[in-house]
Amino acid sequence: MNSSTHWWQSAPATINQDAREAAEARQDILTKPPGALGRLESLAIRLAAMQGRERPRVDRVDITVFAGDHGVVAEGISAFPQQVTYEMVKNFATGGAAINVLAKSLDATLKVVNLGTVVEADELPGVVNHLLGPGTANFTRQAAMTGEQLDSAMQVGRDTVMECRQKKSELFIGGEMGIGNTTAAAALSCALLEVDPHTMAGPGTGLDSQGVAHKAEVIGRALSHHADPNNTPIDLLRIFGGFEIAALTGCYIACAQESIAVLVDGFISSTAALCASRLCAGSEQWFLYSHASAEPGHKTILATLDAEPVLDLGMRLGEGSGAAVAVPILRLACALHNEMATFAEAGVADG
Amino acid sequence: MNSSTHWWQSAPATINQDAREAAEARQDILTKPPGALGRLESLAIRLAAMQGRERPRVDRVDITVFAGDHGVVAEGISAFPQQVTYEMVKNFATGGAAINVLAKSLDATLKVVNLGTVVEADELPGVVNHLLGPGTANFTRQAAMTGEQLDSAMQVGRDTVMECRQKKSELFIGGEMGIGNTTAAAALSCALLEVDPHTMAGPGTGLDSQGVAHKAEVIGRALSHHADPNNTPIDLLRIFGGFEIAALTGCYIACAQESIAVLVDGFISSTAALCASRLCAGSEQWFLYSHASAEPGHKTILATLDAEPVLDLGMRLGEGSGAAVAVPILRLACALHNEMATFAEAGVADG
Repeated sequence: MNSSTHWWQSAPATINQDAREAAEARQDILTKPPGALGRLESLAIRLAAMQGRERPRVDRVDITVFAGDHGVVAEGISAFPQQVTYEMVKNFATGGAAINVLAKSLDATLKVVNLGTVVEADELPGVVNHLLGPGTANFTRQAAMTGEQLDSAMQVGRDTVMECRQKKSELFIGGEMGIGNTTAAAALSCALLEVDPHTMAGPGTGLDSQGVAHKAEVIGRALSHHADPNNTPIDLLRIFGGFEIAALTGCYIACAQESIAVLVDGFISSTAALCASRLCAGSEQWFLYSHASAEPGHKTILATLDAEPVLDLGMRLGEGSGAAVAVPILRLACALHNEMATFAEAGVADG
Repeated sequence: MNSSTHWWQSAPATINQDAREAAEARQDILTKPPGALGRLESLAIRLAAMQGRERPRVDRVDITVFAGDHGVVAEGISAFPQQVTYEMVKNFATGGAAINVLAKSLDATLKVVNLGTVVEADELPGVVNHLLGPGTANFTRQAAMTGEQLDSAMQVGRDTVMECRQKKSELFIGGEMGIGNTTAAAALSCALLEVDPHTMAGPGTGLDSQGVAHKAEVIGRALSHHADPNNTPIDLLRIFGGFEIAALTGCYIACAQESIAVLVDGFISSTAALCASRLCAGSEQWFLYSHASAEPGHKTILATLDAEPVLDLGMRLGEGSGAAVAVPILRLACALHNEMATFAEAGVADG
């Protein structure tokens, strides 16, 4: 590919250092021992720096869940049948999934985008169809996506973020649904990080140890099949990724370019964040990490990204659910930062 | 003391096993892989068991912060001057402290009880004065409290909980403010657990390593001074505790007796929870642990209580702030448990 022609290579927006310093100075004069609010202080400061204001807010939260199927499911790597991807899209449409409940509780918007499932897509309320095919190809035999599918998926992600920008989003959350996508994310992470498949293959929706071993073997086979020292990160995303992983990657890069803070979900989303950081250097400055997934490979990805997730609740659902659960923590961090009295205001001795 | 005459020795209420089983069965049929919501599942199940209903709620949250001064401050064990206890009581009254901001954000009630400070207490809006003296005695020389002070402090805690019961509280949070109270809590924990002062002495509001070493030395001296194999847990609470620690202990036991779920805050609150579990066996079944404090001794107390805190954000403020920050996690756990569709309702294949 001719690297000069792609939107995702444009530089990310600059983090506002003045706002960061103003927020740091404010934390120092609030009525508490210095540092006593721990991560809540650093989260408020990072949000201030991203939003370019001393007092950040995350009132307006926009969630988009991308769904897509994966050809690699033919290799028997999932505990759930492939039709579940579309059944869950219908569950999103009727409001019964975890992310629906969370979005409602948080007063966040929720958009669902179907990028292509093996079950033929109907028109469903609240679901946008951007169908790129009946799922990806089986990447043990060929690349998961064509170049056109990859471009389209990333563009759908970018378009989503441009809508969020119009709506003055203060925090973007991307979620995903796709039976087989822990295998795709694991293969992609292995290729990007050059680590062994056993590091990245985990139980996903519920494989036993034999299933995990088989999954690692399938990934190893695919990595060998596509081994080529000339592969760049964008090639690896096309070969091993999925429609939803590519869309999330596009979202994250676009957020970084458009100055929107991102709250990254779990294993699959973090793989997209890793990809974004490789495709658009510096974009990762716009990413906050919500939770440590129970999927074992997540640790390695988080370490690579120097990421400190806010929560560690043993979650492994996807849909953006872990990120949604962390939203109230960010909101409380902002409330404390914005609304606490200073030592001078309260007439309290500051140590 | 004649052990048969104390209210705090009455048995705790029984956890409802039928409600627990009903909640467990419900988690198994919600549209997610089994266990995929991690700790959110077990939290919802524990709340269901405590509240005696398949679908728990934590809409009604009541927070009470107890303030009191500590004679041991004369030994130079705090980074902040002692007048700050009362200055912070005034800050609570005017709404500028962290717990004010959190209570407002959570739509929780906040009550502040002054149990005795070195600064003479005025009438302040929203602050109840139950003055037991101008702080405790210096426990390096004598017991921190008289038997009467201890009884009164615990009774204030119980009375607080009886009010919460009237208001149909669904979750009780106790907080504390008292310059020097990490030293009192550390000494009490050391005495209860028979561990070395160096395990329990930490920086508190901001001691340097020399200050921490001095604090450990002060605690060691006090433990030697009061060493007596006949001391029971209630004796140790009287000798090393504080007014606010005794009140919290009373609260926690009363909650267990009155079937109200408790969300324990950090180091000092967990010491009170430990004390409660020693004074009223089984009361600890009613306690949930909100966060792992940055105060190093907290780990040992949590391990003793077999406690798994919900959050680990490096907080060390007290006031009930860590517990308040965990409330939205409990609420989202309940929302997911109560509102997600089942596999049958959504027409999704269950693996």
